[in-house]
Amino acid sequence: MTLNVEKELSELKAKVGDIPGAENKLTMIVFSGDLDKQLAAMIIATGAAAMGMKVVLFFTFWGTAALRDPGKHVNGKNFMGKMFGMMLPKGRNKLKLSQMHMAGMGTAMLKGLMQKKNVASMDQLLDVAGQLAVKIYVCEMSMDLMGFKKEEMIDYPGLEICGVATMLSHAKESAIQFFI
Amino acid sequence: MTLNVEKELSELKAKVGDIPGAENKLTMIVFSGDLDKQLAAMIIATGAAAMGMKVVLFFTFWGTAALRDPGKHVNGKNFMGKMFGMMLPKGRNKLKLSQMHMAGMGTAMLKGLMQKKNVASMDQLLDVAGQLAVKIYVCEMSMDLMGFKKEEMIDYPGLEICGVATMLSHAKESAIQFFI
Amino acid sequence: MTLNVEKELSELKAKVGDIPGAENKLTMIVFSGDLDKQLAAMIIATGAAAMGMKVVLFFTFWGTAALRDPGKHVNGKNFMGKMFGMMLPKGRNKLKLSQMHMAGMGTAMLKGLMQKKNVASMDQLLDVAGQLAVKIYVCEMSMDLMGFKKEEMIDYPGLEICGVATMLSHAKESAIQFFI
Repeated sequence: MTLNVEKELSELKAKVGDIPGAENKLTMIVFSGDLDKQLAAMIIATGAAAMGMKVVLFFTFWGTAALRDPGKHVNGKNFMGKMFGMMLPKGRNKLKLSQMHMAGMGTAMLKGLMQKKNVASMDQLLDVAGQLAVKIYVCEMSMDLMGFKKEEMIDYPGLEICGVATMLSHAKESAIQFFI
Repeated sequence: MTLNVEKELSELKAKVGDIPGAENKLTMIVFSGDLDKQLAAMIIATGAAAMGMKVVLFFTFWGTAALRDPGKHVNGKNFMGKMFGMMLPKGRNKLKLSQMHMAGMGTAMLKGLMQKKNVASMDQLLDVAGQLAVKIYVCEMSMDLMGFKKEEMIDYPGLEICGVATMLSHAKESAIQFFI
Repeated sequence: MTLNVEKELSELKAKVGDIPGAENKLTMIVFSGDLDKQLAAMIIATGAAAMGMKVVLFFTFWGTAALRDPGKHVNGKNFMGKMFGMMLPKGRNKLKLSQMHMAGMGTAMLKGLMQKKNVASMDQLLDVAGQLAVKIYVCEMSMDLMGFKKEEMIDYPGLEICGVATMLSHAKESAIQFFI
């Protein structure tokens, strides 16, 4: 009888030990470079971190442009890198809304409203995220494609460049995943 | 021997009790106000509910505009609230496609096709969702930012205003999460 | 004592057996027909498959257009089917970027860069996906709405048409889900 119980117990242990998606963790792919979506991502990220969840963000494609530091200049870029550098918004304060941008009016209106209503700005959200140990990864392939270099990214504690496999291994362990 | 089994069993119980993402539940963030994405969200939501899943929707940002009732008028809005009220589509029947809108032609074409092919409209999908007890939350911060009031929202059984923490606590328990 | 252990063990077994989202599997809804998002979806899909995850893709709405084979012609379409057929991009090599398309320049620029940097094209990604047994479903309702027929879809091993319920039953079992 006891032997049987032990066998079942060890089978169950193996099964439980193997369950993916079982960590109190949120992994989010931040693909969009639109201001509204970046704000949504950071509000969700800081909210989850404040609730005690581990939070991992993976900035890719248009999203990477938001992490550029407008005060940093990088030399030695090739022609394509320079073109992407010019055409994409330089940092989080140059992002536009996905809708109703209206030549800047909608975007300015939202920023004004956010200030009035005490909704945190991208700067404040990144600051809080850093304090709450939200992990930020930047997609290696996107950086390479757009000719961005690590030296032109913002100073964020623990910011790392990684590939899609690192992101997926976090996502697999996470209770929540979003693609934004 | 038996003692050991009991210890292992209690450890395992604690671990299993703690597994997040383990409920037969779907949590969806409806961020987009585009007709095509709202339809996708409602088709997924009613499909999941029909399969016996608990379904929780969290309408935020542009998505909130779809839940306004065009027949309801609210007084006492400030200037910004009035502007957002005018500029955003008033309710689910004014939404446009994210692509191929073509000055209304594409959107009208899709609506005509849906009727012909017996695909449910937003009105019908919301009606079915209500009957299947799909829970609808509206994002408090978005309502506040856009100056929307609860009185101008549609009559939907159990519609509630909540913050991001409520959404996350549902998402964490859910087997499926989407950001649309 | 032993009896109690057995009871608890069987309760625990039932609970573990019932946990959704517990498979080493990724389910992705590919809603967007934008080149950048389709590339992201295929890079994530092939990356996950290479890591040993089961991968299920569900192409719906604008996403379905990417799976059309430009070399296949289908007769007997009605007027609406012909119109959608003409207005939507015919296959993966006609997709455009969601941003910075700039009358084809941005899209061509990205394709040129990808080639130079040895990033796989849509053709190569679909080829790898097929070899790694990534499962591709196409949404029945979208095919019906847009008047697409199975005969005009690409030759992909195991490509199947299915409804939202099939997608949801895969998503429910999956450790990771994304809506792209």
